[in-house]
Parts: sequence; structure tokens; C-alpha cells
Amino acid sequence: ASLRDVVQALDTELRTFDIPDYGGAVNGLQVANRGTVRKVAVAVDASRAAITEAAISGANLLVVHHGLFWGGAQPLTGVHYEKFRTLFGADIAVYSTHLPLDCHPELGNNVRLAQALGLVPSAGFARYKSIDVGVMGDANEPTANVLARVEAFAARYGGSVRTSIPVGSRTTKRWAICTGGGASTETLREARERGVDTLIVGEGPHHTTVEALEHDFCVIYAGHYATETLGVQALGAWIEARFGVPWTFLHLPTGS
Amino acid sequence: ASLRDVVQALDTELRTFDIPDYGGAVNGLQVANRGTVRKVAVAVDASRAAITEAAISGANLLVVHHGLFWGGAQPLTGVHYEKFRTLFGADIAVYSTHLPLDCHPELGNNVRLAQALGLVPSAGFARYKSIDVGVMGDANEPTANVLARVEAFAARYGGSVRTSIPVGSRTTKRWAICTGGGASTETLREARERGVDTLIVGEGPHHTTVEALEHDFCVIYAGHYATETLGVQALGAWIEARFGVPWTFLHLPTGS
Amino acid sequence: ASLRDVVQALDTELRTFDIPDYGGAVNGLQVANRGTVRKVAVAVDASRAAITEAAISGANLLVVHHGLFWGGAQPLTGVHYEKFRTLFGADIAVYSTHLPLDCHPELGNNVRLAQALGLVPSAGFARYKSIDVGVMGDANEPTANVLARVEAFAARYGGSVRTSIPVGSRTTKRWAICTGGGASTETLREARERGVDTLIVGEGPHHTTVEALEHDFCVIYAGHYATETLGVQALGAWIEARFGVPWTFLHLPTGS
Amino acid sequence: ASLRDVVQALDTELRTFDIPDYGGAVNGLQVANRGTVRKVAVAVDASRAAITEAAISGANLLVVHHGLFWGGAQPLTGVHYEKFRTLFGADIAVYSTHLPLDCHPELGNNVRLAQALGLVPSAGFARYKSIDVGVMGDANEPTANVLARVEAFAARYGGSVRTSIPVGSRTTKRWAICTGGGASTETLREARERGVDTLIVGEGPHHTTVEALEHDFCVIYAGHYATETLGVQALGAWIEARFGVPWTFLHLPTGS
Amino acid sequence: ASLRDVVQALDTELRTFDIPDYGGAVNGLQVANRGTVRKVAVAVDASRAAITEAAISGANLLVVHHGLFWGGAQPLTGVHYEKFRTLFGADIAVYSTHLPLDCHPELGNNVRLAQALGLVPSAGFARYKSIDVGVMGDANEPTANVLARVEAFAARYGGSVRTSIPVGSRTTKRWAICTGGGASTETLREARERGVDTLIVGEGPHHTTVEALEHDFCVIYAGHYATETLGVQALGAWIEARFGVPWTFLHLPTGS
Amino acid sequence: ASLRDVVQALDTELRTFDIPDYGGAVNGLQVANRGTVRKVAVAVDASRAAITEAAISGANLLVVHHGLFWGGAQPLTGVHYEKFRTLFGADIAVYSTHLPLDCHPELGNNVRLAQALGLVPSAGFARYKSIDVGVMGDANEPTANVLARVEAFAARYGGSVRTSIPVGSRTTKRWAICTGGGASTETLREARERGVDTLIVGEGPHHTTVEALEHDFCVIYAGHYATETLGVQALGAWIEARFGVPWTFLHLPTGS
Repeated sequence: ASLRDVVQALDTELRTFDIPDYGGAVNGLQVANRGTVRKVAVAVDASRAAITEAAISGANLLVVHHGLFWGGAQPLTGVHYEKFRTLFGADIAVYSTHLPLDCHPELGNNVRLAQALGLVPSAGFARYKSIDVGVMGDANEPTANVLARVEAFAARYGGSVRTSIPVGSRTTKRWAICTGGGASTETLREARERGVDTLIVGEGPHHTTVEALEHDFCVIYAGHYATETLGVQALGAWIEARFGVPWTFLHLPTGS
Repeated sequence: ASLRDVVQALDTELRTFDIPDYGGAVNGLQVANRGTVRKVAVAVDASRAAITEAAISGANLLVVHHGLFWGGAQPLTGVHYEKFRTLFGADIAVYSTHLPLDCHPELGNNVRLAQALGLVPSAGFARYKSIDVGVMGDANEPTANVLARVEAFAARYGGSVRTSIPVGSRTTKRWAICTGGGASTETLREARERGVDTLIVGEGPHHTTVEALEHDFCVIYAGHYATETLGVQALGAWIEARFGVPWTFLHLPTGS
Repeated sequence: ASLRDVVQALDTELRTFDIPDYGGAVNGLQVANRGTVRKVAVAVDASRAAITEAAISGANLLVVHHGLFWGGAQPLTGVHYEKFRTLFGADIAVYSTHLPLDCHPELGNNVRLAQALGLVPSAGFARYKSIDVGVMGDANEPTANVLARVEAFAARYGGSVRTSIPVGSRTTKRWAICTGGGASTETLREARERGVDTLIVGEGPHHTTVEALEHDFCVIYAGHYATETLGVQALGAWIEARFGVPWTFLHLPTGS
Repeated sequence: ASLRDVVQALDTELRTFDIPDYGGAVNGLQVANRGTVRKVAVAVDASRAAITEAAISGANLLVVHHGLFWGGAQPLTGVHYEKFRTLFGADIAVYSTHLPLDCHPELGNNVRLAQALGLVPSAGFARYKSIDVGVMGDANEPTANVLARVEAFAARYGGSVRTSIPVGSRTTKRWAICTGGGASTETLREARERGVDTLIVGEGPHHTTVEALEHDFCVIYAGHYATETLGVQALGAWIEARFGVPWTFLHLPTGS
Repeated sequence: ASLRDVVQALDTELRTFDIPDYGGAVNGLQVANRGTVRKVAVAVDASRAAITEAAISGANLLVVHHGLFWGGAQPLTGVHYEKFRTLFGADIAVYSTHLPLDCHPELGNNVRLAQALGLVPSAGFARYKSIDVGVMGDANEPTANVLARVEAFAARYGGSVRTSIPVGSRTTKRWAICTGGGASTETLREARERGVDTLIVGEGPHHTTVEALEHDFCVIYAGHYATETLGVQALGAWIEARFGVPWTFLHLPTGS
Repeated sequence: ASLRDVVQALDTELRTFDIPDYGGAVNGLQVANRGTVRKVAVAVDASRAAITEAAISGANLLVVHHGLFWGGAQPLTGVHYEKFRTLFGADIAVYSTHLPLDCHPELGNNVRLAQALGLVPSAGFARYKSIDVGVMGDANEPTANVLARVEAFAARYGGSVRTSIPVGSRTTKRWAICTGGGASTETLREARERGVDTLIVGEGPHHTTVEALEHDFCVIYAGHYATETLGVQALGAWIEARFGVPWTFLHLPTGS
């Protein structure tokens, strides 16, 4: 397929230029290639390892959730130089999609994680400007069961899970999911205000655990990496279905 | 002892009004009491649990690293109300000391952690405005040995440890410590520029692991809570030595 | 009545969370109590005197126009400590309502002052974001008569009145009211542009008198305190009517 | 004298370009004239009345404390147009000096007011960036006596005086003066921290009275206009002494 | 005609208070006069030369595109003093209209320049907040022909023309005009994104030429002064047609 | 020579990390190469043309005055992609030096231009934070002679010259130089205040010509490109002298 066609299709499907995001995200095509896409690699992070593995795999389009420009306008020197040298040397384009992928109603990290955990979303969660980054829904089952499924999921992606409080014999009646760095003073407040009793996130700083404890509120920290592996995979499959180009997932866990 | 005397001594020793800090820290006496100090409780966080346990322990001065005002000017309602009701009901004063405690040359979290790990600091690390929050120094031993001591320390405080890369047969020649949320793009850059090969922190977000991996750089994440338990304890002992007032450490781990 | 019910009714009636305000206002419940409301005290300022008198009066809900947090996140030490100690000691909740009370169409300071002066408002005045803080209307009577009524009103509340220019034989054809610190370059400009000839305010700095003089424009300074006494009293009566809880007005003039 | 010489002498004496100030002050020559100074008028405010009286008096240099540009870049229309038309029509230059005049050690509003009240300053007060706007000093006499002198002074300039608390049988041991709009949360805090018991100011908003009351602290409000009449008069005399040009004071009280 | 009537008509026609602009523009009446308009002078810049020539011409209203207050609140000294002295001495009012004149659909600089070049606009160009400052349209003729007409126009106003690239045998299919300082990174990007091949501007800094070169994109720099001469002339004629007051154009080219 | 050595030498000589600059300048090594420097190309702008010619010339280090990152963190797509593809394809490193090159006392654009014009600098000019970007000095010769030399210089680099006023029979007694976009309200004011009568710059917007005219002040606009050609050439020669690596100047005039 032509790079132009794939990029245009992704921009449309993900509403790349309509979804708000942080400045460093630079959503959309971040680096071009010579114009055709023969194979797609998808990864959570545009790290040196991901770029190297993409080159080895023969891919010439790398789709990532965390792109190359979070550090702003940086010189291409050191590790940064090596990454771009590999990209240009192997003619690999990079397409990055941060919040547009988190919030996509079918391919998104949050919707897909809910599905993987057997939870059915009924509303958005984690307001950011004009969008809901995450999802929420109702349930009625022991929180220990939910936790067991989260643990099985995290294990599958090489991660581990901790909770803000022992789940004991609690029941999950309303849950919310916000993948990645999803625990913050704001998401905890929103969760409490909207009657959520179980909040599943990737990670969050120490003070979010303290705040959760104070309110006797259950946060399940399932790992930043693990919770964001599903969106890019869904996107890989979507590209193959649409353009007949094969894809591969580069599994590069970080322990975080 | 009189509250006034204890507060004055702490302000002087910790240079409370000279050390820069974030707005929400509000270092120094955060809540007064009726004027005397009979017993001191120290804790990492001014959480509801810490306040409740301080009341049960009969303390009427609570010294903490993370105080009551990080959320700005908040109404005293809900959990916040309950915390202040307990403080006023049990006549407990609260003294908070954030960066002044991190960077203190004898009682500080960073110096004390180095000491607990058998490391001898020779310089400051982690520049913040006019101060160095952390410490660094030279060594010459297998990183695996350093890691083993960090793991033993963390276990003692109910925490666990992970690293950005397998330590394998590496040697630690230059280390740095920055307790609490000490891993960031900035501390990683400073560490690399100053020749550090082993950086010991409390916690840090996912992207710090990715950045460390890219530079094949070893970060040891030892837990936010665990790495900040030593400073307040040192302060408790310092108050007892100076004013003859007994003290107790409220151990309230969060898993983070 | 339960505190929760009273607070909810006030929030709804005053549109507490819809009306814009300055950051330090912190409208709504500022300090909780143990949960019931037996007696209400109302006052213009949440001063130490007001809190002490509220405690003496046996009230356990204090409703004020100027709340406790204008200084931002402040340590509870000194006078600030004493105020909160009294609140917690006497189990007094504090409800604060600044612009929501100024602009309320029936209970508001501005509407009530117009009524007390025999003036009938026909429009809003003193635009602030999405609301009009004050009121304005038409009349046709000697300004000296209006002034006499303002003076009688101010005297009743222990205040005094001055004007930017001698009123002489002027006629008031269009008036505006903005209670409290209502005189500013902006309100004077708005008044002139909308054809107002008589502006009644609480207070305003020196330069507003100079500006009024320059435009030969009549500002009646009736006292910050006096002009803001009516709203909280209206609110006290409203609570009693609705919840059957007795109320009292704490009259604490400041001379300003 | 030549305008250039007078302006240069004033700039040097008042350190016009070294003293920090608010943006709207625009200290120094604000409007030029045809180049000579035959007569000087001085006034507190560059109001229309002051400009008209300056023209009537035959002055062609008007020296003021509050200049023409507090409103920023404004069109010369309406009253503003009339003021400039008079200035150009009568060939009157305007020299404005705000904080440089407040803080001048011999000609300043604050030093001169202390002198007029029989008080001897020993230090600066009311820090603003690199300068002290006001003055302070020690005394030992009934506050009622100080107040009586302030009242006599204010009466001489057509003003009136109020205090934050009844002075009763208090003794003034340490006083501070900050003319004009000198009462603020900041000056009150500085006064308390430095052991001042009697603060003499021009004016200040309602909340400063509440704050003073809370701390049982005596603020004497002596009128914005009255407290700032001395500096410009001192400057008039200084110009005459130096350049032999006659001067006149335009007394235009505002009641504030 | 009365100044009030002329100003009101201009404000309405130009939508002076609805069109957004930069702070220094201060659109509308900038300086009043004694109240009547007998003759109008129009000029691009409110320079000393324009004011002097307006006075010599007997005009008492000067209409300009670049007004007197771009430098903010400035003292009326030096050249600035001389300009105002001339204005007041000759009783000349100044009306300034910056973006409202650029974007006016009939009298505007951009529409008029298109017309003078034989181009028919079909849409707006150069988005600024809620308005389009410039215009664009379709054509089909050798760019060399367009350039020849621009050169003839510029020569008529004493200016010269340069292009970012040699126009060679290019064809202009879609053009855009943005008079004055119309070349910027933003207008060049907008032009490329909207399929424009020929962008006609007044001036722009060096880097705009580099950017144009890189994209093989044709910018015609026709001179800031020359491209903004038409709007004020159209306005002069409009005033005469409406109020029967004669007008004159003050041609004061700058070479830029 | 090794890239590391050349970069280190340039950083030291130019004080790359001590000289302040605008954010987009990103001074120093902007793109690395495989590690050796065999040939150096120097150019004013890191444009596509410069990169292409550098590749053709066989250079593998390109030294420029205006680097690649003025637009911030941009995707490498379109022309931007092509530029980087050429750089990586031809293994060309890019070193950029903006203000450090303008202000260098021997190799700098300003010093070198003075020298080329037969002028001897005696002081710095055009203050920017802690540095003087330009130079100034005294002379005593007809301005027409100075202008003639500027015109000869500009012609040599394919540019043209204009002046703010006809130079007539003026004499240049004090001159200043600020290359590139050196004419601004600030540099004109600084020039007048310091007694400069002839200011030589690259370019500046229309309003600088108007301001110069008003003050009857002579600005010579010599072309942004032409005035910044000397620094990079001096740097090329400096590298050859120091490292024995040949260099070439890529002359790519823009007409601006």
C-alpha cells in the first residue's frame, strides 16, 4: 500500500487532528519513508529497541503509542541519532497515536482492556478537554474476581499488579479504566464523584495510593506497559484488514 | 517542651525558610496545638491513618514529610474534615518538612538512605533551584551487591524493588540517590552527564524506564515510601535528644 | 436539619457551582461539622469575632459572605489556628457564599439593598464573566433624596457615607448598585456607557473618586460592610423558613 | 529655567529610572512643553481639575504624584482629550513621580508625613522589590496622642480619619507609615512581624480592617489624598530653591 | 460634518469593535478634535511627516492604517510630543483602522489590491482569530503576467518587487493576497495547504524566502507601504461620498 | 578529524552553551554522523538547497547560522523528511550556531562585516540578555562613502541596499552594525540613545523605516543574507586551520 493512503486512513479513523493531546505527542505521521508500506510493526514505545526490532522484522512502518518527540525539539545526537539513523537506513516510517488511540471507541486501549477483562463499558471516564480518555461501567461481582483477571492479563504481558487496599470481600459495582499513567488526584476525584468503587489504571505516583487509602478506595495498578499493549495491536490488525499488509507486535516490556 | 521552642529549633536546623520547595509543600508548622509537646509521632504522609494512629499513640506533635496542603486551599469537608477534627480533638500539631528534609546533610532522607546502603556520598545530586535534593558518590563493587542491599532495605519497609535493566555482571563505579519520586527525564540526564552508572530512586513513571533502557542505564526503583522513611525517624530522634520528648514512628506502607 | 440537606439546598438555591468567582472565595461548605444544624449564625466576614460570637450564640452553622480561604493554602497557626480551634471545639460548620450571594435575584446583596433604598431594579450591572454582580434601574427624583436614604441605611449599620461630588440639585434618572468593593475603573466606565448618573457602592480606592470627579459623575460610597449585610440575613431567614432552624445575625461593623 | 534642566535635575534627585514601580506609573516627564519652565504647579493627581487650575495659575510645568497613563495606551477622546487639549493649549509640561516620591529620604511622602506627625523614622517599611516605600520608627506615647495629631493633619487637608480598633489606653511603641493605598494583607503582615503596633496609612479595602481587628492591631486610616500632599509640595519648594522658579500647590481634595 | 457622526459611521462600517486586532492597534478614534470635520487626510502611517502634511493641507481629520499607540503608553516627549503638538495645534483628529481595514469586503486593502491587479477573490485567506485578513481566488495565466502587473502597481507607489523564486514559465492557478507584513511561516503553510501557488504580500523576513524556496513556492513581495495604500484611499472617498467632506491622500513612501 | 573533536572545539571557541539565544536556535551539533569529518560545507541557512549542495560537494559536516529546528518539534515529513533523508543518506552532520556566531569577537558576523566595510569597532551594540549581538564604533567620513562600500559588499553577495532616508551630505560620526534582522524598535532606540547616526543592518520591518524617518535617522538595510555570510566562512577557515579539513562555502542568496 502507499504510505499516503495508510496515513490518510489512520488519520481519518483515529480523528488524529480533532482529538486534543499534550504538545509532545505530535500525533500522526512523525517520520516519512520512501512511500510504500510493505509490512507494519506495532509497539507501545518508539524506543531504540522497538526501532531496531522493526528493522530486523523487515517492517517499513512502525506504529506506536508513545512517539519520538516528547522531549521537544532535540538534536539528533547520541541515542536519538542512532534511532533516526536506523529509521532512515531501513526506510521505516513512524506513525504515532497517543490520546486518539486511548479513546477510540473500538480500537482504543481502554475499550480493549475492558473487553479483555470481561467488562462492558457504558460511559466515558477521565475527562481531558473535549474527550473522555477512559471508560467506565457497572458490574456486580467480587472485586477479587476482577483482580484475578487483571493479574492474569498483566502476567501475560510480563507485568505485575498491586492494589491501593486489600480487596478482601468487596464487591465491584461500578468500575472505571484509565490505561497508562491513569491514576492522578483528578481521576481519583472523578471516580469517587461518579460512584466508581474500582479503578483500574496502568500506574500512578505514591500520593495516589495515599489518597485512595484515605478514601478507602480501590485502585488496581496493572502496569503502564501492559495496559497499553492492546490498542496498537488492534491497529495492526485494522491496517492488515484494510490494506492487506502483514503486521507484527513488538513485545518490549519494561517492568513498569 | 513548648511547641514554640520545638518549631523554632526545627526551622533553624532544617533551614525551613531558606530551602526552596513546591508551592503545596507549605514547610514548617502547618497546624498549631495548645502549646506544649509531650510526645512526637513521625510519619511519611499526613494521611488519615497517620493522624488516627498519632492520636491513639498519645502524640501531640506529628512530624511528616508530605503535609496537608498539597491540594491547595481546600474546604475542610469529607475525609479532609475528619483529619482536622481528629487533629483538633486530640490537640495534635503538624509539622511538615519536604525538600528541607530530603536535602539535610545529616538527617536527610538521601544521606540516610546512602548510609543504610553502605554508600558514602561525596557530592550533591538532583539540582532543584539553589539546592541538591539527592546525593552521589563513587564505589567499586558488583551492582548485584548494591541491588541486594537495596532489596533487603525495601523488604524491611514492606516494599519491593525493580530495575530498568538486568544488572548482570555490571560494576557500580558511580552511584546517585534521589528518594521519593526521584526518576525523571531530568535526573536521568544529569546522572548520565555526570558519569553515574547506578541511580537509586523511590519511583518514576514508565517513560523513565524506557529512557533508561535506551541508554542501557541502570535505575533501581526502591519504592517511594521505603526510601523516605529514614528522614522523619532521624528527626524524631533529634527532637528527643534535644528536648527529652519521646517519639514513635508510624509505619504505614502503601506498596508504592 | 441535617447539614447535608441544608448545604444541598443552599448549593441549589445559590447555584454555587455555576456562578463564577475569584479563586479565594471557595464558595459552598468550607468546614463541615458532625452532621446536624440546630442553629444558624450569619455574618458578613468569617472573622475571629464572628466565629467567637457564633460559638457563644450556640450556632453550629455559620453562613458568611467572606470566607476563610482568601489567603490561599495557609498554615493553621496564630489567629488562623484559633479560629479553627473554636470551630472544631464548638462543632461549627462554615458555609461561604460570595458572588453567588451578590447576584442572587431575590436574596442577593444588591437586590436587597435596592429594595431597602426604595429602588426597583430593571437590569443587571457590573458584568463579571457570565454574570451581573449588581443591579441598575430608572428613577426620577432628586439625588439628595436618594442620598438621604443611603445615609439612613448606613447609619443603621454603623457606617457613614461620602460622595464623589456634591449632589446639589441633581436628579437621579438612572442608578446602579454594586455592593462591597464596587467602585473600580471598570464599573465607572460601564456606568457612564449605560447612561447611569448615580452609582451606589460600598467602597473603592482613591482613584475612583478622581475618575468620578473628572467625569462629573456621582458615586455614593455607602460602606463595604453596610452594603453587604442584607444578603446573609436574607439567607438566614430563608434557611429558617425552609428547615425550621432558628438563626441570628452577628452584627460586627468595621467602619469600612 | 529650561525644561530639559529641570527634568534632568528631578530625574537625578528622585532616581527616576532606578526606582521600581508599577507599569502605569510612567515616571518622569510625561508630556513635554515648548522648552522653558516659568512657573510650577504641584498636585496629587493629574486630574482634569488639576490641569485646569494649573492653566489658570499660569504654570507651565505640572508636577504630580499620580500621572496620566494609569489606564495604559488610551485614545485621547472625551475627558482624556480635554485634558491634553488644555495641556497643549497652555503649553504645560507634566512630570509624574510615584514610588520615587513616596520613598525619597528627604522629599518623600512618607518621611514628610512622619515629620508632620512629630515621629522620627529609623528604618524603611513596606518592601516593594528593591525599595522600602514607607518608613517606621520607635516611640513611647499614648496612641490617642498620635491619633490626635493624625486627625489634626487630616483636617488641615480636608480629610477624616478612622481606626481599625478603638485606641483606648494603648501605647504606641513602634509605628510604621505607608501613605496612599498603604493598607494591604502584605503591609499588615510585615507590620506584625516587625513588632509594629500602630500602622498609619492613607486607605485600604474592607478586608484590611477585618484582618487588623482579628489581630487586635491598630491601623489608622488617614486618607489617601491627605497623606500624599506633602511630597509634591516638597518638590515644588525644591525646584524653586534650585531654579528660582515660583511654584504653587493645587489643593484638590477628594474626600478619599 | 460633526466628528461624532463621522466616527460613528466609520465604527459601524468597519465593525471597529467586533474585529479582533493586536493590542497596539487601538482601532477607532485615537485623538479627538473640537468637533467638526471639514477636510480629511488619509495616510498609511501616522508618522510625523503625515501629521505635518495633514496640517499643511488644512485637514482636521487624519485617517490612518497604522496609528499612534503601537508603542503602548508612551510619554509625549521628543518626536512623540511634536506629533501631538501639531495635532492639537492644528485641531486634527486621528482615526486609526488596522485589521478592520485589511479585511473589509469592499474598502479593504486586500480586496482593493486584488481588484487593482485584475484578480477576483472567491474566499478569505490568512486566518486571524475570528477573521480572514486577506483574500484568495483562482486564475489561469502565466505568473509572469501577474508579476508584471504587481511591478507596475508597486512602481506607481514608489516601491519595488522581488520574488522568492524566478517565476519562469509557471502558471498561476490559485493565488492569495495578504498585504503589509503578510509573509510568515503561518501564511506560507496555509497557502500550501490550500493549494495556493502564488502568494502576494507586502513584506516578510528572510526566513520566509528560505521556506518558500524549499517548497519551490512563489511569494511575490510587493512592498509593505505600496500594498496598504488602497484601503485608506477607499475610506477617504467613502467619507466624501457620505458626508460631502473633501479628502486627500498623503503619499509618503518608505521604500519598504 | 573526529566529529567529537571538531564539535568540542567549536563548542569551546563559540561558547555555545554560555551564550543565550532564542529557543528555536538549538545551538551546537544538531545532527550527528558516523563519526568522522572529511570535508566541511558552510552556509547561512540549513535549507534543502544547502543540504543538497553539501551532499554533492562531498562534505560530511555542514555548519550553518540558521539551523533545522526553528519550527520546534516537527514531524519529518514532506520537505523536512527529504532534508533529513539526504543528511542520513550522505552521512552529513549539521552544526548550527546562531547568536554565538553573531557575537564572536573574531569570527562573528558583526565584527567581520565591520572589517569588510573598513570600520573599526570599539564597543558592543544590540544588547540581548547577557551579550551584545552587534558592534559599534566612531568614524568621520561622508555617509555616502560608507553607503558605497555597503553597496559594493551587498552586490558581491547578490543583494541590494536601501536606506531609511537619503544620505545626502551627512557625515557618519558614530555607526553601529547588527546583521540579519537587526532593525527593530529596540535597536533604533538604543542607537539614538548612544549617539549613533548610521545603523547598518540586514533587514527590518516597515515600521522601522517609519520610526527612522521620524527621527531623521539613517538606517542602511544591506540584506539579511549578505550580512550573515561572513561568520560561517570564517568558521570554515578556522576549522581547516585547526583540523586540516578542507571547506567550501555554499552561496545560496535569497534576495532578502
